[in-house]
Formats: sequence, C-alpha cells, structure tokens
Amino acid sequence: MALVDMAAVTLRKEELHASVGDPVLDTMNFLNEITHRYPKAISFAPGRPYDGFFDVEEIFTHIRRYLDHLEQGGATPGEIRNALFQYGPTSGQIRALIADSLRKDENIDVRPESVVVTVGCQEAMFLALRALIAGPDDALLVSSPCYVGITGAARLLGIEPIAVEEGRDGFRCADLETALDAERARGRRPRAFYVVPDHSNPSGTTMSLEERHALLELAAREDFLVLEDSPYRLVSPGRQLPTLKSLDREQRVVHLGSYSKTLFPGARVGFAVADQRVVDKDGNPGLLADELTKIKSMVTVNTSPLSQAVVAGMLLAADGRTSELNTETSAYYGEAMQAILARLDECFPQQDRDALGVRWNRPDGGFFLTVDVPFRTDSAALVRSAEDHGVIWTPMSYFYPQGGGEHSLRLSVSYLTQADVSEGVARLAQFIKSESTNAG
Amino acid sequence: MALVDMAAVTLRKEELHASVGDPVLDTMNFLNEITHRYPKAISFAPGRPYDGFFDVEEIFTHIRRYLDHLEQGGATPGEIRNALFQYGPTSGQIRALIADSLRKDENIDVRPESVVVTVGCQEAMFLALRALIAGPDDALLVSSPCYVGITGAARLLGIEPIAVEEGRDGFRCADLETALDAERARGRRPRAFYVVPDHSNPSGTTMSLEERHALLELAAREDFLVLEDSPYRLVSPGRQLPTLKSLDREQRVVHLGSYSKTLFPGARVGFAVADQRVVDKDGNPGLLADELTKIKSMVTVNTSPLSQAVVAGMLLAADGRTSELNTETSAYYGEAMQAILARLDECFPQQDRDALGVRWNRPDGGFFLTVDVPFRTDSAALVRSAEDHGVIWTPMSYFYPQGGGEHSLRLSVSYLTQADVSEGVARLAQFIKSESTNAG
Repeated sequence: MALVDMAAVTLRKEELHASVGDPVLDTMNFLNEITHRYPKAISFAPGRPYDGFFDVEEIFTHIRRYLDHLEQGGATPGEIRNALFQYGPTSGQIRALIADSLRKDENIDVRPESVVVTVGCQEAMFLALRALIAGPDDALLVSSPCYVGITGAARLLGIEPIAVEEGRDGFRCADLETALDAERARGRRPRAFYVVPDHSNPSGTTMSLEERHALLELAAREDFLVLEDSPYRLVSPGRQLPTLKSLDREQRVVHLGSYSKTLFPGARVGFAVADQRVVDKDGNPGLLADELTKIKSMVTVNTSPLSQAVVAGMLLAADGRTSELNTETSAYYGEAMQAILARLDECFPQQDRDALGVRWNRPDGGFFLTVDVPFRTDSAALVRSAEDHGVIWTPMSYFYPQGGGEHSLRLSVSYLTQADVSEGVARLAQFIKSESTNAG
Repeated sequence: MALVDMAAVTLRKEELHASVGDPVLDTMNFLNEITHRYPKAISFAPGRPYDGFFDVEEIFTHIRRYLDHLEQGGATPGEIRNALFQYGPTSGQIRALIADSLRKDENIDVRPESVVVTVGCQEAMFLALRALIAGPDDALLVSSPCYVGITGAARLLGIEPIAVEEGRDGFRCADLETALDAERARGRRPRAFYVVPDHSNPSGTTMSLEERHALLELAAREDFLVLEDSPYRLVSPGRQLPTLKSLDREQRVVHLGSYSKTLFPGARVGFAVADQRVVDKDGNPGLLADELTKIKSMVTVNTSPLSQAVVAGMLLAADGRTSELNTETSAYYGEAMQAILARLDECFPQQDRDALGVRWNRPDGGFFLTVDVPFRTDSAALVRSAEDHGVIWTPMSYFYPQGGGEHSLRLSVSYLTQADVSEGVARLAQFIKSESTNAG
C-alpha cells in the first residue's frame, strides 16, 4: 500500500472498444477544442436551436399543465405523484399525446402502441439499429453525407454503414438501388436505409416527392425498412412535403422523432414510430415497437417521466400541434437562411464565384447549407480559418462514412444572430479567397 | 396500392437481433403479465422504491434551488436559460455537485472530471461494458445471481457474462479467482467483474470487509476492473461498510451510481465514476470517463438538463449529503425488512422450516431477501401462486445468467405496506406448504 500512485492502473486506448477511436468523435472533439481555443471566432459549426424564445418560467407551467391533464383524466393524487417520481413504462407514458400530435402535425396515423418514447432521437436510432441489424450479414445503408448520430450508433454495435452518395439535389433512388445490388452481390442482406428527407443535416437537401414514392416502392420490392429522421420540418418556413411515414402503406418506414428542435433539446425526448408487425417462431404477433421497448429496457430503462411531463405540457398547450408552437421559430430560421444566402451572394459576386470555383446550395429550410471550395477543408484549414480569419465551420468530410466532402464545408444558420451571420460570412469570404489564392 | 393491408411487411422475430429474444426479458414480461392478470394478488416482485415520501410540489422547489445556485455562481439569465433548455455537456453539468456528494456520503474522493452523468445507472453499465469489452476475447464476469440490468446490457453487445456463483453469505473471492483462471485457460482476458457489494439485488447478501480488500488485491494482481453497483447502501439502516471505490488505491474500481433509490427513479439520473488513466498509442493521457463520454454521445447525447436540475436541487438541499435525505426512508425500509423476517418466522415455526426444507436469508438492509423452497419455482409455480394463493414473487432463476436458482424465490420489501407484507407472507406460507405437500 506504500506505492499507491505508482501502482495505479493505466488502460491502453487501443484495448478499449474500437468505437472510442472513431475518427468522427475525434474530429468532433477537435471542433469543440477549436471553438474553445478561439472564443472570439464566429462559429457556423453548432447545430443547436436558437434559444432566444425559451423562457425558464414556462418549464413550471408545462409541468403543471400535464399534471392538471392527468387529474382531469381521473388520476388520483398518488397516481399523479407516481407519474412524476417513479420509473414508468419503458415505452413511455405520453405515447397517446405523441400519436395525436403526429396525426395533426404530420398526417402520420398510428396507434399509441406503435410509439416508443426515447431519450432523444439518438436513442431511437440506436434501438432501431440494434433491433434490425442482427449480425454481420445484415446491411445498414445511409444517405451520404450523413448525420453523425447514425454512424456513431452504428459504430457502437460494430456496424459499418454503407454510404449511398446523394447528388447535388439530394437523394437519388437509382443510386440506392445500385448499392442494394452491390450488398446482395457481397452476400449481405440490406435491412435498413437511413435518410433525413427534409433539409438534411449536413447537406441541406430535400428529397423530392417523386423520390419519396420511388423509395417506398423500392423498399417494398427489395424488402428493407426506411429509417426516416426528420427533425427540421416543423422549424422550416412554408409548406413541407409529406413525411415518408405518412405515405407509407406497407409499414416500410420507421419514423425517428425528435423534439429537440420543435420543443427544446434539454428535454432529451424523442421517439420511434415502429408499427411493423413482428411474428415469432410460433406465429405470435407483436409490433416492432415492442422489440424496441425491450432493447430500451437494457439501455436507459425508461425516459425521464419529468422530461415527458414537460413535453406533454407543451403538446397540450397547442392541442398537439407543434407546428403552431413553431410559427415564430420557423420564420426566424427561414429569415436566417435567407440572410446567409443573401450575404453569400453579396460577398461572392458571380464573377468571383466562377473564378474561384466556389458554390453553395440554397436550402429552403432547415439549419444547414454546404459550400464547395477549391481547396481541402481539412483540420489544418479549419485552424487557419479560426486563427487568421476568426470564423469556424464544419468540414463536410466529417459526414462521409466512406470518404468524400474533402472540398466542402457546412454552415449552420440556427444559432447565430443576423449581425454575426453578416460578419461571419464576410470573414468566411476572406478566408476562402485567401486559401484559393494560396492554392492557386 | 389496392392491396394495402395485404402488402404490409411482417418481420420475423428470429431475424432481429438476438437480444430481443433474451429469456430474461421474456420472463420479465411474463412477470408483468401475471401482475396484470391477477391485480388482487399481493406482489413481492417489484423493486421500486416506496413513494409515500414523494411530494409533487418539491419538484418545483428543487429546480428553483438549482437555478438560484447557478445565479449565485454568477450565471447570466441567458446562461441559466440555456442550462435548462439546451443540449449541455455530454458528460453532464452537475458533475461537481456529484463529486462533492460522493466525498461527503461515501468517502469517494474524485475530481468532477472523473464523473459521467448518465440516464440512470443502466446507461452507466452500458457505457462501461461497451468501453471495456472490445471483442470476443474480453471477458465480463458477474457475481451470480445477478441484477438483470447488467446481463441485459451485455446481451445488447453480444457479450456472454461469466457467472461467479456467490455462496450463502455472498461473494467469495476464491471463486472469482477460479473463474478468472478458467477464462484465461480458454484464451480470454478478464476485463471486468460486476458486483453489487451491499444488500445485493437479488440475493440480499453483503460482501464482508475482508472480501472487499481481497477483491481489490485480486483485481490489481490479475489486472481487471471492478464494476461496483451499489444503489441500496444509503437507503439501508445503520452504518454501511466502505464502498469498494473508497478503498480503491489503484483505480481498479469503476463506481456505477444511481439516484433511483436515494432521490427518485423518475429523474433517470445516474453516473459512472471512472478515474482510470487511459493512454493512446502516442502516449497522450486521458481518463476512462472521457471514453465513456464519447460512447454516451452515441447513445443518448446527454442526460436531460432538466432532470439534472432536479437532482442538483435535491443535493443542494442537503449540502450534498443524500444520506441525510434518506434518514426516514432507510428507517422505513429497515422496518419493512424486520417485519417480513418476523412474519416469516411466525408463519414458519422452526419445526415447519426443518420439515419442509424452507429457509431464507436475513439481510440487514436493501430491498430483497431470498427464500429457498423444496419445489421448482418456475413460471407454472408462479401462476399457481398468483391464482390459487393471491401472492406474487420473482423466480430466482431469472437472475442466474448460466442456470441456477430453480428452487428459490426473491421477495422485495420496498414497495408494500406492512399490512400487505403481513398478509402476503401468510399467503406465501400457504402456497409453499401446499406446493411442498404436492411435491412430497
């Protein structure tokens, strides 16, 4: 006992599970580090919602409203107390409210039994992957570039996602078909395809109605499920295209839901809609939601009833219409997107764009857009950008599970003020011009 | 589109991940089903805390207290708002309060950086397993009978836990040593040993001080980590033995923390204390807590700041001493345990016990005790018990990862009133006598 400190264990990182060495995580850490190292830089990196509309006092009002709702529904004081303090059903206690809201907001018509309340959409992704990918012969395909949450969840389970590259205008069904064929040729069975159909993170693209229908037909024909993740729809201005789930006549779509953008991230409440029929060997029927619930019992047991209470209170305040709660926010984000696009136009007149080979897309909603530049957008470039020009962005290569995006960057418009957007784009233009000159 | 319903997908359960077919989950579902089917039966099954001491209004007070604390610490109104509404650090925002509480309550002296706040202790288990078990050659050993949460988390990751049977008085280091040798002989590397040292779930046994020291020495000698899960200590009457973590001089112990019993389950807040040093290939040092945090970012992103706020408010109310918050509850549970033991003595006089071959242990704390009986405590027996005698218990076989416990049952004392305990044990005695007669 004398050599106390000398004897302390040292673990070797390469002996831990491979997921902790995932390059995506390292790059995300790097991004955080840069943000800390250059606190005065304007950062287009974080995808956080704008928080100017949040009001602390409302937390209390929302919890109260839910408790009143329980009381009006006939709950005894003891039941109300337990609904906040005890464990609670693993599948969640506000499933009926969520199903009601989905019907009103999204034309998604499912029974509450098909809904599993999760700790954010991230847990919903994890549950869906764990249920559907049973072994190394089961393939997960992802629209690429791709949200890091799905690749992260896959890494934990040793799943190597197969990237299906999107085109400039987004997802193309034909490319998915090619990828499916390639997987089958390798002896693997495509089980699920993950996509953000609306205002995608990171690219900002939206899937056309025609591609939506084609995707559902392909899923039926090729026998796989679509994992639909669509957190930006109701915080985007204007009319949205229908969700895949609302078009789904064959229960081919598992809809992964998030309240992080429509209500608030701190609730950590999301959900999965999994109305697929599952039969066991003896023919006993159940729902995929039941299987996700079992898995959830081994991950988080249940979603905080307190968080569910706040979310329920918010849903009740708008009679389930989260779209109505987001009139102001979606206008705000829409204006931010218009502002950044106008500012990019201003800072890069057409002749500059052509000369430099700079271009960007023009999403009509969501938090993100992408800019293609004529130089490598790697970590070294990011450091130069932060240090010499005071502006931070996210390298698009972070979002390509199998390589790509080396000459693109992602800008987020959700969190900055319009003044910061204006100044930030000016700095970005300086940085891009400086890099292009050096590269040239 | 005409054959809408006919075309709906049907998934085959045997094609989903094997974890959803885990027998433990099926038996747990069976137990729930029985509880629903016989609502008038007295149930000794649930391990939920007693909720008579909860008070809905306190939720509001605790959140307020935490917000005041932030304000006194110099946070701006915007920062306070964000601390509730935004995402927040993946490792948690109340780590300093938890570290302070651990020092005061448990003599565990670690820096806040070693703490990761999790969605209940269940997520902490999952993170620890995912980090430490890198592949099929890494072995997880568990004290058996064993809490189902650890076996469940293991199943998700395809890990087959190795059971180390405890004796009548609990864990024996010599048996672990034998199991370690056997694993090494199979070419596997023991990485972690999971144990509930105090008032174990399900058996109710407590590890002696001598075995605690011996376990730490063995861990150092054989180079593995101990996963210490100890949710019942501070809700048990009297002085507790020191935690393994407080005796740990070589950072051999990862302490898995729960507030479900000491504060309330609905918070879904737990934590891992992982102060182990980790070095990467280039020699860069970090903490195991950092690696758990990375994994958490792929499971739940972060623990609800709202839940953390309530927990923080409770900790602040007692200046970190959760033990003080639990004076009343630990007395309550202690009395419940004494009551059930007295009632068992009463219902089974010594000559009956000897004649029938019935015996039980006498835990001095926690929620559980075990009863050995002379017949099989299987699902069929449970149905007879519920239907014919109006009493429900948990078959101990549910808790043996590699078989065992076929003639034992677990009784929980945490949730029932003393009147129910009294009537329930009388019914149990009738059931046991009836089964023993039939068996004889």
